[in-house]
Amino acid sequence: MSEYRVIVAGASGYAGALAAKLVWRHPSLELARITARSEVGKPLSELYPRYRVPLLLEELELERLEDLDAAIVAYPHGAAAPVVAEMRGLGIQVIDLSADFRLRELPTYENWYGPHGEPTLLADAVYGLTELYRDRIQGASLVANPGCYPTAAVLALVPLFERGLVSDVVIDAKSGVSGAGRGAGEQHDFVNVDENFLAYGTEGHRHAPEIDQELRELLPTASDGLRLTFVPHLLPLDQGLLASCYATLSEAIEGEELRKLYEQRYAEEPFVEVTSAPPGVRDVRDTNLCLIHPTIARDGSRPVVFAAIDNLWKGAAGQAVQNLNLMLGLPETEGLE
Amino acid sequence: MSEYRVIVAGASGYAGALAAKLVWRHPSLELARITARSEVGKPLSELYPRYRVPLLLEELELERLEDLDAAIVAYPHGAAAPVVAEMRGLGIQVIDLSADFRLRELPTYENWYGPHGEPTLLADAVYGLTELYRDRIQGASLVANPGCYPTAAVLALVPLFERGLVSDVVIDAKSGVSGAGRGAGEQHDFVNVDENFLAYGTEGHRHAPEIDQELRELLPTASDGLRLTFVPHLLPLDQGLLASCYATLSEAIEGEELRKLYEQRYAEEPFVEVTSAPPGVRDVRDTNLCLIHPTIARDGSRPVVFAAIDNLWKGAAGQAVQNLNLMLGLPETEGLE
Amino acid sequence: MSEYRVIVAGASGYAGALAAKLVWRHPSLELARITARSEVGKPLSELYPRYRVPLLLEELELERLEDLDAAIVAYPHGAAAPVVAEMRGLGIQVIDLSADFRLRELPTYENWYGPHGEPTLLADAVYGLTELYRDRIQGASLVANPGCYPTAAVLALVPLFERGLVSDVVIDAKSGVSGAGRGAGEQHDFVNVDENFLAYGTEGHRHAPEIDQELRELLPTASDGLRLTFVPHLLPLDQGLLASCYATLSEAIEGEELRKLYEQRYAEEPFVEVTSAPPGVRDVRDTNLCLIHPTIARDGSRPVVFAAIDNLWKGAAGQAVQNLNLMLGLPETEGLE
Amino acid sequence: MSEYRVIVAGASGYAGALAAKLVWRHPSLELARITARSEVGKPLSELYPRYRVPLLLEELELERLEDLDAAIVAYPHGAAAPVVAEMRGLGIQVIDLSADFRLRELPTYENWYGPHGEPTLLADAVYGLTELYRDRIQGASLVANPGCYPTAAVLALVPLFERGLVSDVVIDAKSGVSGAGRGAGEQHDFVNVDENFLAYGTEGHRHAPEIDQELRELLPTASDGLRLTFVPHLLPLDQGLLASCYATLSEAIEGEELRKLYEQRYAEEPFVEVTSAPPGVRDVRDTNLCLIHPTIARDGSRPVVFAAIDNLWKGAAGQAVQNLNLMLGLPETEGLE
Repeated sequence: MSEYRVIVAGASGYAGALAAKLVWRHPSLELARITARSEVGKPLSELYPRYRVPLLLEELELERLEDLDAAIVAYPHGAAAPVVAEMRGLGIQVIDLSADFRLRELPTYENWYGPHGEPTLLADAVYGLTELYRDRIQGASLVANPGCYPTAAVLALVPLFERGLVSDVVIDAKSGVSGAGRGAGEQHDFVNVDENFLAYGTEGHRHAPEIDQELRELLPTASDGLRLTFVPHLLPLDQGLLASCYATLSEAIEGEELRKLYEQRYAEEPFVEVTSAPPGVRDVRDTNLCLIHPTIARDGSRPVVFAAIDNLWKGAAGQAVQNLNLMLGLPETEGLE
Repeated sequence: MSEYRVIVAGASGYAGALAAKLVWRHPSLELARITARSEVGKPLSELYPRYRVPLLLEELELERLEDLDAAIVAYPHGAAAPVVAEMRGLGIQVIDLSADFRLRELPTYENWYGPHGEPTLLADAVYGLTELYRDRIQGASLVANPGCYPTAAVLALVPLFERGLVSDVVIDAKSGVSGAGRGAGEQHDFVNVDENFLAYGTEGHRHAPEIDQELRELLPTASDGLRLTFVPHLLPLDQGLLASCYATLSEAIEGEELRKLYEQRYAEEPFVEVTSAPPGVRDVRDTNLCLIHPTIARDGSRPVVFAAIDNLWKGAAGQAVQNLNLMLGLPETEGLE
Repeated sequence: MSEYRVIVAGASGYAGALAAKLVWRHPSLELARITARSEVGKPLSELYPRYRVPLLLEELELERLEDLDAAIVAYPHGAAAPVVAEMRGLGIQVIDLSADFRLRELPTYENWYGPHGEPTLLADAVYGLTELYRDRIQGASLVANPGCYPTAAVLALVPLFERGLVSDVVIDAKSGVSGAGRGAGEQHDFVNVDENFLAYGTEGHRHAPEIDQELRELLPTASDGLRLTFVPHLLPLDQGLLASCYATLSEAIEGEELRKLYEQRYAEEPFVEVTSAPPGVRDVRDTNLCLIHPTIARDGSRPVVFAAIDNLWKGAAGQAVQNLNLMLGLPETEGLE
Repeated sequence: MSEYRVIVAGASGYAGALAAKLVWRHPSLELARITARSEVGKPLSELYPRYRVPLLLEELELERLEDLDAAIVAYPHGAAAPVVAEMRGLGIQVIDLSADFRLRELPTYENWYGPHGEPTLLADAVYGLTELYRDRIQGASLVANPGCYPTAAVLALVPLFERGLVSDVVIDAKSGVSGAGRGAGEQHDFVNVDENFLAYGTEGHRHAPEIDQELRELLPTASDGLRLTFVPHLLPLDQGLLASCYATLSEAIEGEELRKLYEQRYAEEPFVEVTSAPPGVRDVRDTNLCLIHPTIARDGSRPVVFAAIDNLWKGAAGQAVQNLNLMLGLPETEGLE
């Protein structure tokens, strides 16, 4: 007895396809339609056999959306905004997986992505890092689902930043290849990735302003002095993301206190677990979990915190469904276990 | 016309086998004998077919070493020291790949590895990071070949540390599985490593004191205030190591100056190249190269330096042959290109 | 409202752990207990975090089994038989994942595995290739779950063999590393498997007599003249198995007829799909599917049939639960989708 | 003192780049020029850093070829023929890595590849499987370098076919991704290959007629009755190719005789080794070796022969240099060890 009719727009990409699968098998949602800008007419099960979603990919026709309750939009940034605006005009509740509504300041968006097609909608959007904005998501009509790096990095640092006293943080992050999306070009050919590992985006990665926005918001006092360095790397694997975070505090903290800080902060979170050893990305593959291990560097000088997620789940489609559950008043974990 | 007769002791392991191959094909060296503590009687070509070394693995018999000029010892720490001492007693020049002679301070060694079997030899040993100690290596009779992580991390940071003004450095390092050595146990089973990535050694990795020793030595002034954090991670690949280094300086530096600093420092180095983009570990596989990319974090706050090596080459057997060339008065790059 | 209480014995290995996970999340089964011969006292979630089974591994105590309805036994061959016998003595319905009850002829078992601990139970055991023996499994008290290679190879060939006229078949099979089980030794170290691919078991693999037994049984006439060659290979991946089968027929068949033969045979099977292109093992990962593509060699000379499964699912734990569903009168696909 | 000036045309692809590297480090060859149809102006060391070839990629200008002795052409089929014709017109000795001159019968070529641009040159071309045509290659001015699959498959079967009595052969072959060439499209994206394995080209792979041509030529008697089935598969690795060959003989052969047959046939071959166990593709990576293991199926019914090569070396650029050595009167193994 599915209660809500959901469309997934952009279901031919990695995140959209997983979102379609999660909605398809969700006990309280009906996957009413899946659309794509390529591969139209094919069943999704041909592109992603193991997801077993037999629906055909359709072109997105806005006039056929009226009977829908909610949408998950998995379009590239820029292309998402007008589609989201149309859907919102029809009263459809939207989870947007693009970057179009993640940055609250328009100039920051324009600086990193160029002109914004629907700036007036920015004020309506709630940033969908569930563990930070659960209350607002429950009442939202438009949720900007976070990027994969910000999800891991911010969750790794929330307890430290909420406590304050962080003056500097280095986030050395590593992601599997699916994080780059489907058809991401020759640098993601098998031969270029296999047995390889390197940093990229050192000129400035678009997830940096998102991490910046969220971490500064967390600091209880002015964040002017905060130094924040984020560097992503490409792992030779499909799904998985690890953020290794090195903080400098203006006041020392000991291991036991650090651990308690994290355990208390996340005690009630269904998808965050504080672990006793550094987590591997394999431990979270195909789950919506975020495993976090906070520790103190051996010389006592600083906290080092590791956070592992599956970039397609908690870093994209899983968190989208988690947020959709909240928006629709369903149990937060439904369809995700 | 090989000029020098060389033994490789411990040739059944990854680093020892590669050392045997490099000596075998070296124009001025003769691979006189290869020994191992297991697999005795087998040709090395059975264990490592692609190296094409047909010699049989023998037991190490010290009485049969007298006609040798030099030895590369690839034993585990602890087991290496007595073998090295015997060889030195016979006048054989030794490159030791273990940790037994890397740490100049005996208490530091004992703190990390336990009792030392041949502490009197410590004073004779030269730390074999070629680019730092070339002159001393040329006159050395015992070279302690550096660990793979220290090789990459220190090379990444030499120009910054020689300039001084570094107050804090985070080294987030990632290595392929061969770095752990052969038979390293269940955590290196294919199923545990494949599609996985995680930090390890967060309680304190044995390469930390080695990095610490070398970096502090480089600082022109007292290094008391230096904070140094080193965290290794395990990559799902065979050969390759990347060190991502984040420095905090007490005085700013700009990108152009940083780049020149590195280019000048390494201008004459045959195996170090300063690159214009972040290097991948695949770029150095099966080479003795260290590729280094120095850059400035986008917010201008700090230098970020990446160094890529092949952990079995520049991180072990390749650097061993580079050092052996120097000790024997041969061209430094011979047999390594 | 779980109806049946189930134990998984041998839950620390790959197949046993997955069986535990599948029972844990099964709507009509209760995972009452998990046991292992090592790692006792640890939660399964520590060994296999992504399975999220919080139960602790216990030692197997036969006196504590009385309140159980069914067992999945994932012990090595030889060790399984006495445990199965004890459980059967208590009236527990058993799915055995070992080879101990797969071969109907005792001498064949002894020839390949050595003495059999419980030969009298052989007559009770039903071979658990669901698509062949569904009726018998429904009434069985002891099911011998097939090996991974036989599952794929026999499913690939059932329609051809049932039709008869097969005189020769070559099965070139390739499996991921998890098929060898946990702790399978140094040849499964990451460094030995990564970027490698080779045949093994060419002296005779233990799955050969199992394939032989099932295929000969299928032939409608005497199988004396049948030649059957089976060669397994090791793939550098975790989960996945592909069997490429080359048949020689005593009477020609055309592509269209071949395809219809397969489609008709498997029309009602929930977990077998006949595909229009060669299936990849990635298509079935973490599913209980068997994808089969029958085709004719380009010169028209013979059928070539590909079958892909996940060796841990349809090749082990998934099929075990499929069989358990049948034994207990539950819907065959329950808990597997 | 390099004796011969060599151009590599098409050096931006995988095989061409390796050919450039091999010529670059070859003691008797001078890499005079490297050309490409894309990436012109870049140093090859930027595209393939570990090859360390600093030359810049140029456009191919036929008027600048006059001072050259030999060429290795690594163009796609169709594009190669006119370039080869121009070079031959200038008296340059050519090794062509494309398929354009491999098939001796023009209709066969046209059937598989379309119209042939330079059919008159076909009569001049020698098929460059060194172990079969060494004498002809020594006197050749144009060598058609074999495909990677034919190299492994034919070498695996030469001794059996020369002996005759083969009536049927199945070649189940598996290749790493580099075999498909650079920029081979989305199906070679990392995410589509990683943890995957599948057959392809089942409608007819272009290497099939090449294998067919060479094997039929070997049979001492009419080959009309020969049935030959060739199926390639894609391995999730970079370099490496294994052919598993299953022969049906009209007269039995025993293991010992089979082994001697192979050992005698290949006793003098510098790059073919008969092994005592099934070879892995890792054993030959970055070598020009072909490792062959002939065995008898356990039921005695047929020979099964495994051949492993590195598809970029013996399957392409390595064999090209081997052939070039022969054409130029140099030692066959020079520059390849």
